[in-house]
This record gives sequence, structure tokens and C-alpha cells, in this order.
Amino acid sequence: MSPIITLTTDFGDSSPYVAVMKGVILCIHPAARIVDLSHQIRPQDLRHASYFLGTAIPYFPPDTIHVCVVDPGVGGERSAIYLEAGGHKLLGPDNGLFTGVCQHLGEPTTLRKLANPHLWRQPVSNTFHGRDIFAPVAAQLSQGLSPEELGPVATDLVKLTSHSAVCWQNRCEGEIQFIDDFGNLITNIRAGLVKSLPLKISLGKEAEHSLRWVNTYADAGPGEMVCLFSSDGFFEIAEVNGSAARRLNVNVGLAINLTFE
Amino acid sequence: MSPIITLTTDFGDSSPYVAVMKGVILCIHPAARIVDLSHQIRPQDLRHASYFLGTAIPYFPPDTIHVCVVDPGVGGERSAIYLEAGGHKLLGPDNGLFTGVCQHLGEPTTLRKLANPHLWRQPVSNTFHGRDIFAPVAAQLSQGLSPEELGPVATDLVKLTSHSAVCWQNRCEGEIQFIDDFGNLITNIRAGLVKSLPLKISLGKEAEHSLRWVNTYADAGPGEMVCLFSSDGFFEIAEVNGSAARRLNVNVGLAINLTFE
Amino acid sequence: MSPIITLTTDFGDSSPYVAVMKGVILCIHPAARIVDLSHQIRPQDLRHASYFLGTAIPYFPPDTIHVCVVDPGVGGERSAIYLEAGGHKLLGPDNGLFTGVCQHLGEPTTLRKLANPHLWRQPVSNTFHGRDIFAPVAAQLSQGLSPEELGPVATDLVKLTSHSAVCWQNRCEGEIQFIDDFGNLITNIRAGLVKSLPLKISLGKEAEHSLRWVNTYADAGPGEMVCLFSSDGFFEIAEVNGSAARRLNVNVGLAINLTFE
Repeated sequence: MSPIITLTTDFGDSSPYVAVMKGVILCIHPAARIVDLSHQIRPQDLRHASYFLGTAIPYFPPDTIHVCVVDPGVGGERSAIYLEAGGHKLLGPDNGLFTGVCQHLGEPTTLRKLANPHLWRQPVSNTFHGRDIFAPVAAQLSQGLSPEELGPVATDLVKLTSHSAVCWQNRCEGEIQFIDDFGNLITNIRAGLVKSLPLKISLGKEAEHSLRWVNTYADAGPGEMVCLFSSDGFFEIAEVNGSAARRLNVNVGLAINLTFE
Repeated sequence: MSPIITLTTDFGDSSPYVAVMKGVILCIHPAARIVDLSHQIRPQDLRHASYFLGTAIPYFPPDTIHVCVVDPGVGGERSAIYLEAGGHKLLGPDNGLFTGVCQHLGEPTTLRKLANPHLWRQPVSNTFHGRDIFAPVAAQLSQGLSPEELGPVATDLVKLTSHSAVCWQNRCEGEIQFIDDFGNLITNIRAGLVKSLPLKISLGKEAEHSLRWVNTYADAGPGEMVCLFSSDGFFEIAEVNGSAARRLNVNVGLAINLTFE
Repeated sequence: MSPIITLTTDFGDSSPYVAVMKGVILCIHPAARIVDLSHQIRPQDLRHASYFLGTAIPYFPPDTIHVCVVDPGVGGERSAIYLEAGGHKLLGPDNGLFTGVCQHLGEPTTLRKLANPHLWRQPVSNTFHGRDIFAPVAAQLSQGLSPEELGPVATDLVKLTSHSAVCWQNRCEGEIQFIDDFGNLITNIRAGLVKSLPLKISLGKEAEHSLRWVNTYADAGPGEMVCLFSSDGFFEIAEVNGSAARRLNVNVGLAINLTFE
């Protein structure tokens, strides 16, 4: 049984681009097993993609081949890369997309530029390397192609600027790193940094007084604003059975400050 | 060939949660065959989920394993359950999610609490049992695990309050139970209850005079408001080539009254 | 290994209709391999469907069975058809849906009416032939059923009115044929018709002066309006890292005029 190929893109679901990639993969490898992760990464949003991949990829079996195409620089000077981290195999543009994966799985143990045009669909377009480079290379890898065939070893991987939370004395300063489809606000403050009940929370320039600390949503009533640890271990703000993002009208990147007792 | 595992959630498509569940399943059972039903159940909307599952599950081969996660009470006191009804196998929180399935397939022939932590991903989080309990249990069931291993027999299943249509003399009173992506209004009035052409229809407090009775949408022209029987056998109101829900500005739960000739 | 069955519909992702079709297919052919292309074709939008299929289908392996259900005339007089073009097998209503496929792959080499009710789910509803006709027929074709069993040879295929671009002297007149999820405007003007740098572009009745000709998006800065050739070879207008559709507030069908130097 050949390894799974997963697809993560910002292509959306009403455009033919995802279908095209599936077709290209299946032409090369008719027995390929394709699994959709998401095609609703916000258009060209590398932070969204990086968070998504960093959260999801570690749960997959090693040897899965993950094709990731959020690629605002397609056809320009950015490289196309293949990397292995924690045994997982990833393909995509070298534009910071894999920052979250490296945070969770460590630095790549293998890193290669995709530079072998014999493995690509010809002619290669300027605007759709998902179809012309990443899909055909993934299909061939799933058939057993050795990564050494892909191109020369690369030494550097582009990373997004780090937005780590900072803690000192009884304070912790971070930001909202992701808002999920429920409207829950996932900050970048790891659970381990929150050593006692926060006394005061401020979001942006406003203090929030009405947040109740809970273990899970069901500990409070519908409509209550709560804070808790997210399922992947970050400080989270949520509205029970509602959307904290809509209620507070906030976006990714907003600063959050915790002051502990 | 192992049984299909289907996934139905309210997780949305831009969050990593569905991908995470797929990864967990594939780690345990690399040959698992995963089929997405929907990840666009409205957040925490148990009625939507119950209608969706009640409509879709009966069409699947018995022995399919259906993982259903719409779970506002996750981490609280609600149980996690496994049930068999009509030969179909379902896993999810015991919060009313399976009301529609039981209406269509009859009461469960098997009902067990998920209470065997050896089958779960550890540590179990407070907020993501899809990842920690339901996905790993489904994967193991698809490998042949006996349901007896899951936990003790349960006797009761939580049900949503029934919203059955009521008929007397020449009247029938029901409500809109589902609005599909076309904006068609599916009521809870079964075709069998509609014994003759309705003379008068009222939605909420307003009478609708302009509805034409048809066998199918194509019997009327674009933009016409029609009523007909839905493909799953309920009285339905639709706008031909348009959205009745938008046109009438109505929502699920609105009362509907039919008066027959 | 049986051929892939793909699904393309306008059913959306929160309704049970796609799940129902998957269930029907898997009941007949438990080993069927189902691949989603899109369920976000705009409701009843045959042009969208035709463009989508015309772009995506050619990339699939011949022998794939493509089930396409955008079917405003369901239950009315339109036929249900099976066709083969370029080795690809397609099933759907005969309502113009396959116009784009024929433009890309040539006229069908096989064309049959679906007229054999023994192959269908009974009773056939008036409003959901995806479930009752197309899904069961696709499942049986994937098991090796001969197309001759489906029904009599048909001679005509319904086509959408052609909206071809027209060029004369130094001018080219076309229209926007598709807007993708990025908001890129894909016109119906083929790259081969654009013989030199356009001097002047007008969209609808307004001249656009600020478009820069580029090879790929990355040649210009975020927010710049550019024109280029799309990945499937049409003249395209885009906003770099943004949505040209939103910026210009335009829709499919809008006229576009190019005047060359």
C-alpha cells in the first residue's frame, strides 16, 4: 500500500485547481490515496497555513507525503522545496509555510530544492506550480522515487518572523495566533507559561473583566466568555456556544496581556 | 477490505481539527478508508446534525463506522457512546445527535458507553474528544475490535425534544426542520400526512398565497415559489432557481400551517 | 483496482445530499474509490459547472467516471446522459453542463441516454436524480457494466450558447468567464489571440489604465492590479495578494475589450 498524499491549499472549493491537482496525481499514480486536509486556508495567508500545518501534520503517520500550496510568490524567485521533519515528508514553496511544522517537529533532517524538471509537468506555468511541480513530484514520491532525485540539498528554510509570547515577573504578553471556525481565539501563550490563575486579561488596549477560567466549555453557560487551554495547549478565549471573535470583533495578531495573581 | 469510516463534524474547513482526526485514524489504521460527510454542520447545532445524519446514514452500507462530532458539552458530564441501529455503527457524544438516526432506523440494537481509556489517545483533553476518543476508537473498530471492549451496555440514549407535525381535521401544523444549501425549506410534515392539495399555507404568522403545487422544480418558471415533496419525503417550499429562505427571510423552527381543501 | 468515481455538484457542504450519493455508491460497490471535485458549484449555475468541468476533467486519467450533478431541470424533460470524450466518462443531466468538456476534449465519441430503469434506485424521485440515477449508474459502471446497457445511443448533446471571444484588426472583445476563489478574473480570451502588449483594456464601459502586464503575480507588489495569462491559457486580470473581483466589483459575464499596440 502506497503512502497517503495529503493536500492543503488556499484554492477554495469552487475553483477547479484542487480537482486539477488530484487528476495530475492520479494520472501518474492511479492507486494514489489522496486525503484533503483543507482548501480553505485564507488566500495567501502564510501564518494561517503555518499554524494549520504545525498543528495537523504531527498527528499523521510518518511517511505520509504532505503537499502544501499557499504560494503568493509562485513563479517568482522563491524556491520549491522538499523537507523531512520528524519522519514526515512535506512539499511546497519555500516561503515560511513550514515554520509551524518545524516548531512542532524540529528542524528538517532532509531539505532539498526541487530542481529536477524531468519530474515535472511540462511546460511549467508561471502561476500554478501545484499542478506542474508539487502534484507530479508527490505522485512520484508516493511511488517510491528517492528524494535524492528531486534536486540538490538545501541548507536554509525560510521562516516567518517568530511571534513568541514573552513572560516576565507576573506578566505574559502574546497575541492571537489563530481563530478557529467556532470563533475561538487561540493565543500563542503556551499552557506551561500560565502558572496561576490570570488576574487580569487585556486584549489589544482593552481590559476584559468578564472572563471565567474553566476546564472546558461545558463548565459555563451558553453565551459566557471563558478562558481555558486549547486542545493543542495554548491559552484560549472562547464564548460558550458562540463566537468570541465576533463578540469581541478581533482578528489574528491582536496583542493579549495576562497578569497573574 | 476494512469498513469505511465516515466523518461528520461542525469543525469547519479552515481549522486543523478534521485533519487532526484523519491523522489519528491513519496512524492507528494505515489502510483506513475515510469518507467526509460534512464538516459544515452549523457550530453546535444538534438539530442540524440530527437531521443530516438521519437523512444520510440509512443510505450507507451497514457496517460503515460513522464518527459524528457535534459536541457542545465536550469534557462535561455527557457520555460518549457507541450505537448500532439498522446495522449501522455510530460513535459520538450522547447529546441528542442521534435522534434523527433513530427516527429513521429504529431504536439502537446495541448501545454502549465509551468507558475504556485503554482505547483512547492519552492524555485525553477536555475539549477535543474527536481526536482523543472518537477517532482512535473508530480506527480500532475498523480493524475488527469488538464493541464489547468499548465499555458497559447503556440503556438510554439522549433524544432531542420531538418536533413532530400534528394533524387534525383538515389542518396540519409543523415547522421548518431544515434549510438546505439551495435555500429550500424542508418541513417536518411527512408526505403521507398531506392528503389533498393544500388550500392555504401559512408560515409563521403570515399567509402565503402564491405557492404553486408542483411535482418538481422544473414544472414552474425561475423565480416562482412552489411547494412539493422533498426527495426524502417531506412537504417542502422552494423558489425555482432561487432561495426560498432568502426570499421569505425565514429560519429553521418557523411554524408552518397547512389547511387542506 | 476499480476506476475512480469523481463527484461534482452544486449541493453545498451543509446539506446531506453529497453524503447520500456516497452512501448509494458504496452500497452498490463497497470498494468504490470516490474523489470529491467540488460541491461548491454556484447553485444551478451551468456556466460555472461547464467551466469547472472543462478545466478539470482533462487532467484525470481516462476511464475515470465523472458524476456531475448541477440539475435545475431535474424531473422535467431534460434527459440524463452518459458520454465519453477523450476517453473520459461522464454522467449527468443533458442541460449544457458538458459544453466546456467538449470544447477541451472534442465531441463525444459515445453518447447514450440513461433509459434503463433496472439500473436505478427505485422509486426514482422527482427531485434527486443524483441519488436515484447518477450515483447507482456510476457505481455499476465502476464495476464493469457496459455503457451499452445504459440506454439508446443519443445523437445530440445540449450546449450552452457559445461566448467566444472575437478579434478583429487590433481589437479583441470577450468577457469574464470565471472568477476564482482568489477573485482573479479569467476571461474567455485565449492567450494565442493576444499577439502584443494590450495598449488599452476596458471592462464593461470603463477603461482600466492601471493594469500592469506581468508573467506572474510575484512580478508586482501586493495590491497592484496586473494582467497575465492564467494557468489554463486565458487572459486574466488579478490583484496581487488581493481580489480583483472585489476591488473592481465585477461579475462573470462582464464584457472586456483589449486594444493592442
